[in-house]
Amino acid sequence: MANIRLRVAYDGTCYHGFQSQRGTGLATVQECLEKALTALTGDEVQVTGAGRTDAGVHALGQVVNFHTGSAIPPDRYVYAARARLPRDIVVRDSRLQPEDFHARFDAKGKIYRYFFYCHRGMNPFFRHYACHVPESLDVEAMRRGAAHFLGAHDFEGFCAKDPAVPMRDYTRTVWRMQIRAKGPLLVLTVGGNGFLWNMVRIIGGTLLEVGTKKRAPDSIPELILSKKRALAGKTLPPQGLFLWQVQY
Amino acid sequence: MANIRLRVAYDGTCYHGFQSQRGTGLATVQECLEKALTALTGDEVQVTGAGRTDAGVHALGQVVNFHTGSAIPPDRYVYAARARLPRDIVVRDSRLQPEDFHARFDAKGKIYRYFFYCHRGMNPFFRHYACHVPESLDVEAMRRGAAHFLGAHDFEGFCAKDPAVPMRDYTRTVWRMQIRAKGPLLVLTVGGNGFLWNMVRIIGGTLLEVGTKKRAPDSIPELILSKKRALAGKTLPPQGLFLWQVQY
Repeated sequence: MANIRLRVAYDGTCYHGFQSQRGTGLATVQECLEKALTALTGDEVQVTGAGRTDAGVHALGQVVNFHTGSAIPPDRYVYAARARLPRDIVVRDSRLQPEDFHARFDAKGKIYRYFFYCHRGMNPFFRHYACHVPESLDVEAMRRGAAHFLGAHDFEGFCAKDPAVPMRDYTRTVWRMQIRAKGPLLVLTVGGNGFLWNMVRIIGGTLLEVGTKKRAPDSIPELILSKKRALAGKTLPPQGLFLWQVQY
Repeated sequence: MANIRLRVAYDGTCYHGFQSQRGTGLATVQECLEKALTALTGDEVQVTGAGRTDAGVHALGQVVNFHTGSAIPPDRYVYAARARLPRDIVVRDSRLQPEDFHARFDAKGKIYRYFFYCHRGMNPFFRHYACHVPESLDVEAMRRGAAHFLGAHDFEGFCAKDPAVPMRDYTRTVWRMQIRAKGPLLVLTVGGNGFLWNMVRIIGGTLLEVGTKKRAPDSIPELILSKKRALAGKTLPPQGLFLWQVQY
């Protein structure tokens, strides 16, 4: 059996997230991929994704792997999958991996990007791909606030809790926090060894409050130490979030 | 009566073009604008657009004007229209104009952009906003070919003919032809004093053949002189085209 790794981009607008929700009738990216790959290979394909993305969240560099006995050359899935997938899911790269490669367990880190569109009028081309902020933001204050997230912290106050998945350790290491402005677009880049549920969207919502001067940049360390979700900012809407890259 | 000028951006994906097709049941941008402005002002608003865009074609800087007796301050339409318009049509700017301003007749020129996405796999985020070219293009050859379109020419070979609208003069002046590449994106910018139906899409289709080496860059002058539509390139698909700016 070959172990195939795919890099997948998808527009999450029309999906109820990455992860299969079999039996619910809700469209998910994973089910679309499995259906396409099953039809292509003749195997009952199950894909493993590097990370889940929520409904409406996008990916430019999601990574999945699957095992197959198919004779399709490993580097041909870009072409082979095209006609079997909807146009909002694209295989951008494919290759053979060692048999024990696992897209989730082997991931060393991930990079997410969150896009804000800061202008009184929304640009209609960003309506599914950015959070509209009808004012300009204090980018320098946001950068100062963002720097406090760098390093290893207990992020219990920056996650949503899933009662079905008890979490023992909320410690994650953030090794990249970057804020770039280009015209009305503001891009927050967060890289880390792992992420809790909604972590990037809550960090982003907290920094948005810094950008609108509702919160001081240097209040962040105390906020992290409090571990209280209620004290952090709002969870930003999903459409601005992109799983940008998975690192191995 | 105040004469109001709006700069309007729209994602043309879901519309059968800009121009009203009353009685057909097809959604158009003009009808959405008129419905929103009629509801807002209480007048039976008719808008005049600077240019028509075809089904699936987008606009970042379409300009329209309309007359109204409403007391809404001219610069407030950005906010006032927001709740009345679908999210894929946005008023980006509004202002009062002299009574005789006419969005179409007073336009001195227009700038269009056409986007190509040149990569074996399509980026799903560009599926409605660029033409997919599954190979890289010879940008230098395209630039040499493009330069031949500059100046005043009879563009009869570079337009679709509408039997309902007889055309006496096919001469138009193109004063800007620019091709920029940024990663897999290639952007053709065409500025001119006026454009024939499908003119940018046929110029783009001809330059695409230059980029794929099916046509020599220096064959363009003869092609223009021939005035034969059949000798020019294919009409590119609509989704890559944007009405970028109207100049007054």
